[in-house]
Amino acid sequence: MAKQPVLTPQAEDFPKWYQDVVAKAELADNGPVRGTMVIRPYAYAIWERVQAELDERIKASGAKNAYFPLFIPESYIKREAEHVEGFSPELAVVTHGGGKQLEEPVVVRPTSETIINSYFAKWVQSYRDLPLLINQWANVVRWELRPRLFLRTTEFLWQEGHTCHATETDARAYALRILREVYEEVMVDILAIPVLTGRKTARERFAGANESWTCEGMMGDGKALQMGTSHELGQNFAKVFGTQYLNDGGEQVPVWQTSWGVSTRLIGALIMGHGDDAGLRLPPRVAPVQVVVLLVKPEDGAAEAATALADELRTAGIRVELDDRVDTSFGRRAVDWELKGAPVRVEVGPRDIAAGNVVLVRRDNGDKTTIAIGAAKEAAAAALTQAQASLLETARERRDARTATASSADEAVAAAQDGFVLVPWAALGDDGEQRLAAQGITVRCLRSGDDLPAPGQTDGLTAVVARAY
Amino acid sequence: MAKQPVLTPQAEDFPKWYQDVVAKAELADNGPVRGTMVIRPYAYAIWERVQAELDERIKASGAKNAYFPLFIPESYIKREAEHVEGFSPELAVVTHGGGKQLEEPVVVRPTSETIINSYFAKWVQSYRDLPLLINQWANVVRWELRPRLFLRTTEFLWQEGHTCHATETDARAYALRILREVYEEVMVDILAIPVLTGRKTARERFAGANESWTCEGMMGDGKALQMGTSHELGQNFAKVFGTQYLNDGGEQVPVWQTSWGVSTRLIGALIMGHGDDAGLRLPPRVAPVQVVVLLVKPEDGAAEAATALADELRTAGIRVELDDRVDTSFGRRAVDWELKGAPVRVEVGPRDIAAGNVVLVRRDNGDKTTIAIGAAKEAAAAALTQAQASLLETARERRDARTATASSADEAVAAAQDGFVLVPWAALGDDGEQRLAAQGITVRCLRSGDDLPAPGQTDGLTAVVARAY
Repeated sequence: MAKQPVLTPQAEDFPKWYQDVVAKAELADNGPVRGTMVIRPYAYAIWERVQAELDERIKASGAKNAYFPLFIPESYIKREAEHVEGFSPELAVVTHGGGKQLEEPVVVRPTSETIINSYFAKWVQSYRDLPLLINQWANVVRWELRPRLFLRTTEFLWQEGHTCHATETDARAYALRILREVYEEVMVDILAIPVLTGRKTARERFAGANESWTCEGMMGDGKALQMGTSHELGQNFAKVFGTQYLNDGGEQVPVWQTSWGVSTRLIGALIMGHGDDAGLRLPPRVAPVQVVVLLVKPEDGAAEAATALADELRTAGIRVELDDRVDTSFGRRAVDWELKGAPVRVEVGPRDIAAGNVVLVRRDNGDKTTIAIGAAKEAAAAALTQAQASLLETARERRDARTATASSADEAVAAAQDGFVLVPWAALGDDGEQRLAAQGITVRCLRSGDDLPAPGQTDGLTAVVARAY
Repeated sequence: MAKQPVLTPQAEDFPKWYQDVVAKAELADNGPVRGTMVIRPYAYAIWERVQAELDERIKASGAKNAYFPLFIPESYIKREAEHVEGFSPELAVVTHGGGKQLEEPVVVRPTSETIINSYFAKWVQSYRDLPLLINQWANVVRWELRPRLFLRTTEFLWQEGHTCHATETDARAYALRILREVYEEVMVDILAIPVLTGRKTARERFAGANESWTCEGMMGDGKALQMGTSHELGQNFAKVFGTQYLNDGGEQVPVWQTSWGVSTRLIGALIMGHGDDAGLRLPPRVAPVQVVVLLVKPEDGAAEAATALADELRTAGIRVELDDRVDTSFGRRAVDWELKGAPVRVEVGPRDIAAGNVVLVRRDNGDKTTIAIGAAKEAAAAALTQAQASLLETARERRDARTATASSADEAVAAAQDGFVLVPWAALGDDGEQRLAAQGITVRCLRSGDDLPAPGQTDGLTAVVARAY
């Protein structure tokens, strides 16, 4: 099968390749209002799988889903000084409602700390109400001047968790539990992206947080993508909104809080973290179609065999699609399924069927094997397991190969052109960080060896430095 | 157990009873911006169950989920004259974004016909692209001057389906399939509300539709609640937005369309459709907690027995919660679970346990039975099945008992004070409908005998007339 050059090659122009994939795999379109996005059914189906994996783990961590209003009075946003500074240039403001000018303008939520805290203040009374663990799935709006589909859009979909705890220790433990047992686990085990977790520097911290923790993935061009963050908010919002509880000793004490979120940006991570010149390569655990049964030609029992095989795979719990659109050429359909990143393709044609065989093709590595049709179900299931592991392994190898070390800011600038750079934080510091920033390079996170820094740790930290989305 | 009067009795003041239940069962709070709503975890968990039941059936009907932007250019809304008239007094308008006044104001979607059609126009080219069946789960905004939690809020959550078809017949069949196989089925089989389905009159039709079909439920005060609608849009939007396809004969033809939606209003229907003076009565299929195991006192093995029973029920796939908060009185907790409408309560106390028994209480009818602990699992499962059926039956009996017949508009006015009234449409007509409207009574739908009217049927129709939410 001759491959048509449907996409700009990655090596030629990675951003153009990204745009091509998003358009040609029918993932998303630009909305009519600058920076907004239409998420098309194929990408939305990926999002639904990602959501389900996250939601299950969020619930297992004890949080309950709720829903807070889209509209926030402008005065709420202004209550927390650092928070408003962080968000004010990004806000969308409603000034008219119900045919009239509003007395107080209303902000479309850029995130929900302020409105949720105004309710937490009512709901939390005593230590018995703690911990209070809330999550919401919602759309948020941050006006974007340089939008990019999935990565940076004026409106995006996300989950945002907000919690209240009786102690700083409990809040920190919960923020880190979400980071590791929800975010890192989904990113590594489900999305097959070997993220680096770490602490943000003061410069990169969330507006209003005491500490921000992050998961950073490496994309196909060596740049970093911040895939999810979890924040310790300390008592900052609690003091402003008056969220306090009566402790054992009969004192009113402000609660300790966390917030944490991941968004539809994860779809961008899947595209850029695994894609190649032929298109997407989806990890089986999030692929809407795990196996496509591709009918080559309907003659000589091939159509019946393809239908029977698709049914057999479906019954086995595999997400399967039968592609029997034989009025479109086989080659074109095969290219289209490669573009869409379906992990396994089973080709069913008259010639192979005559010999009792089908051809199984793995999208991740292109391996092609002829197998007896009776063994197709086991072979497809095994291929899915192998593809999931192999995508993670490949991404890890690339990340390691493209991670350099440096001992100064100057060295780091040069090395960061190709990927991640590990630099001792002591050799960098706030000044070094600022010098890197002038070159478009940021400290993605601080780590301690192969792990997160300990609480309060300031010595022996390694900065992970990179160009980033 | 002495019941405390936690709620205003329904007979005394039904709207006040509703407000009390919503607040005291911790279902929702008013948002700070007029008409907006905070959906608290217990109500959101009900919504998640309703969503799952709907989503499964929507997908089975062939539609795929997608997501379109929240923000719609004002000019889009103005393209379809009837549609803009229907919505303009309700719109929320964003005039500022990213710190600047916008060149064109942006409307927060009140529904998505206009923006979705602008994409359908690009996506639909030939008959091969049809039918195009899209659904989205989203928030929408319609400025409400007289808001009521769940029933009528400025922002609400819903699903909205939008489809394109090659023929009018196909579009109509699909609109009716959604009405019956998705909406009516979920409302009757899952929510246990015996809705009446029918066609809307011209006066009550959706702005921009050729026909609107509806599911109408009767609430505890005899008033009607419109629980879901499905519309045939004809070619109205297709002509305005240029959504057309090349048919077999080589002609460009506008597509035929449908749209359909249900919202968080369904939670209001559950509250008012089944609630009594003690609070909610949730159908087991949507109850976040189906069985509460209520530990009376921990002594003499009761605590261990309660824990073991809760585990056994959980393993059997029942959504169970163990309430062992014995520092709160048993009576107060029992009242609270009645308020929250948990379908089955199993009381585990030292005295009964000594005799090897527990007490099972059904929320729907108050039946209380002492049973051997070894039989508790089967008894609880059976009680859930019976409660589901019984709630539907009770609601059906009430509806039938409160449905009168009338032969003129004047007769209907009197009869509609207590419930539904069936009036021959021929005896009513547009004039009669208008006279009823002056008395706050509307034609909820037109039916033909016990069924929907046939396509185009104008004779032999019965109007279902009622006061409505």
